[in-house]
Amino acid sequence: FHPVFQNMPVTVFETMSGLARTHSAINLGQGFPDAPGPEDLRRAAAEAVIHGSNQYAPSRGLPELQAAVVEHYGRLQGVPLTPEGVLITSGATEAIAASVLAVVQPGDEVVVFEPVYDAYVPLIERAGGVVVRVRLSPPEWRITEGLLAGIAGPKTRALMFNNPLNPAGRAFDAEEVATVARFCVRHDLIAISDEVWEHVIFDGRTHRSLLAEPGMAERTLKIGSAGKMFGLTGWKIGFVCGAPEVVDPVAKAHQFLTFATAPNLQSAVAQGLAWPADRFTAMRAELQQSRDRLASGLAAQGFITTASEGTYFLCVDLRASGIDLDDEKVCRRLVTEFGIAAIPVSAFMTGADRPTGIIRLCFAKADAVLDKAILRLGRAR
Amino acid sequence: FHPVFQNMPVTVFETMSGLARTHSAINLGQGFPDAPGPEDLRRAAAEAVIHGSNQYAPSRGLPELQAAVVEHYGRLQGVPLTPEGVLITSGATEAIAASVLAVVQPGDEVVVFEPVYDAYVPLIERAGGVVVRVRLSPPEWRITEGLLAGIAGPKTRALMFNNPLNPAGRAFDAEEVATVARFCVRHDLIAISDEVWEHVIFDGRTHRSLLAEPGMAERTLKIGSAGKMFGLTGWKIGFVCGAPEVVDPVAKAHQFLTFATAPNLQSAVAQGLAWPADRFTAMRAELQQSRDRLASGLAAQGFITTASEGTYFLCVDLRASGIDLDDEKVCRRLVTEFGIAAIPVSAFMTGADRPTGIIRLCFAKADAVLDKAILRLGRAR
Ligand SMILES: CSCCC(=O)C(=O)O
Ligand SMILES: CSCCC(=O)C(=O)O
Repeated sequence: FHPVFQNMPVTVFETMSGLARTHSAINLGQGFPDAPGPEDLRRAAAEAVIHGSNQYAPSRGLPELQAAVVEHYGRLQGVPLTPEGVLITSGATEAIAASVLAVVQPGDEVVVFEPVYDAYVPLIERAGGVVVRVRLSPPEWRITEGLLAGIAGPKTRALMFNNPLNPAGRAFDAEEVATVARFCVRHDLIAISDEVWEHVIFDGRTHRSLLAEPGMAERTLKIGSAGKMFGLTGWKIGFVCGAPEVVDPVAKAHQFLTFATAPNLQSAVAQGLAWPADRFTAMRAELQQSRDRLASGLAAQGFITTASEGTYFLCVDLRASGIDLDDEKVCRRLVTEFGIAAIPVSAFMTGADRPTGIIRLCFAKADAVLDKAILRLGRAR
Repeated sequence: FHPVFQNMPVTVFETMSGLARTHSAINLGQGFPDAPGPEDLRRAAAEAVIHGSNQYAPSRGLPELQAAVVEHYGRLQGVPLTPEGVLITSGATEAIAASVLAVVQPGDEVVVFEPVYDAYVPLIERAGGVVVRVRLSPPEWRITEGLLAGIAGPKTRALMFNNPLNPAGRAFDAEEVATVARFCVRHDLIAISDEVWEHVIFDGRTHRSLLAEPGMAERTLKIGSAGKMFGLTGWKIGFVCGAPEVVDPVAKAHQFLTFATAPNLQSAVAQGLAWPADRFTAMRAELQQSRDRLASGLAAQGFITTASEGTYFLCVDLRASGIDLDDEKVCRRLVTEFGIAAIPVSAFMTGADRPTGIIRLCFAKADAVLDKAILRLGRAR
């Protein structure tokens, strides 16, 4: 078997969700809401399963969903797209896979930022690429020109960017996004910009797509996720957006990765993308309240957390909280002994000197669940 | 961009379905039924979207679906599996992609039979493998020991098998399946056995899984498709089955191709797999009637068809029918001038001396549609 997969462990999300089930723990590990999801979209999907087509959708997606993606990003982010520049995939994971398999040739170098989402590195390596890691440091996780200096060479072909950044909970600011864009333009890189958390940002922030930066329109694959946008993570509908000439080869890869995606769920997502802006604002506000509830509950128990500017996640700085154990040990004890599943952030970093004292908690849960989790975490101190 | 995708054409299915839409043609190209699909399964899926979970399924699939796959293949094919040996994917295309990306390393040779389903070759090449083609010949499309002699060498790592064979409509007999199995055992190959048409077989045939042949249990990835089983091609739920040690690396590849598949559709498929055998028999009988209706209608118009032992497809032998044009030309004229979309079988073969006089027609359609198609085909003679 290919070495990338031969000895690969099960993903940390899957492992932790498995342990959560075994130990009947509160699952603040894998990022998914415990709410059922928007009723209008679930009804639309159910209706389409009964009365719509259950046969192959077009490989690039239902035209109505492509059009809805164009309208949505135009209206809410000022990002100009055309339907030919929109590819619908079976979740953002497939969007990332198709992008990497289309872009990366054997020997190509691909820049990633650590902490790095767990799918990126195996995909780059399976494509024959060489991973170049730029490590961000807690608690700021800030991107600077300095970090990027001397990183790119003649073999550097692409950069993978995740903004907002999972697991750190950073929403990069205008200066950082501009820094990344300038780096891509200077070195003539394709940017695979994983923006799945674009709607999950707090404190009045607005999302800045890498695609909208100067010089980036022709070189950016902007990736979005209906699962994350609507809190329906099981639906597995993603988007790859960009200039048609950049999206085309990705659509070719997609033809042979999944070919197409369930039309019933696609048409429901099209309906959701047309929501007025204030429904998205309301979803954010609700998540922000959950974030604040978890943050203040943890603070009351003496935990120090890092800023959560976006994503479903809040990170606890163990060392700063006076807990001198590594994050993996802490997560294992939390799930087996205290009934709380969390994710160790060191799982997304490499190197002996990487930070190992941060754990990630998902706050997209009901208040009562968060309160119970806070109590259990307090007990574990 | 990677050379495999840079200049790749859109798939022949997608192209023909697009032309069918543009020209309001009867679409006998891409293989999907025009029936809505089993109502009990559609109701179950709709119910699960409203009342079940819409969040991430486990990456390997819902336990109830894994169990249903085990039960189904045990009961109907005598194939012994365990839940650890069942991986649920986002359609059989993803099952094939994950299998190829897990199995094939750069430089590995992979044996395929021509006509070859269009996903196989680009996937093998994107994985860095070298395709070794064994050409089958119409109208028998028969696999023999002779065809396989001298084909395998020290670098041969895997074989991809499609039984029943799309687009030819062959259901290989016991002797041919045994020949393929012996070849795999002799050369220590992994077999990627695409059996998506296993339930769509006619004239009292029984499906013989490659996995059940002597020596194959430890080396076969058996791929199935709920879309094809239940006539719900849009649902995109597939299975990879085999020994857990062989399925494991494929599950690792799957983690980063799609991660998981819509749980609502999965639970409905689990319900379908538990159907009594006679419901599958009834589906077959209905499809067989459609096949016979198309075959006799075409015969009455003077067309010569090849045997359709399985799949949704019946092939017309143009030369034998007295039409001395190549299949691509014929398909293009049929869709633009006569309002019938078909698939040219030469699209699945290579080499200047390949057969170019066969077109594939999908008969999984209502009687009235088939009758209209027959009239139009008659007019095109
Ligand atoms: C695909 S499972 C992981 C989901 C997720 O984005 C996360 O928990 O970080
Ligand atoms: C994935 S689209 C092609 C469907 C199919 O199996 C066929 O038409 O042969």
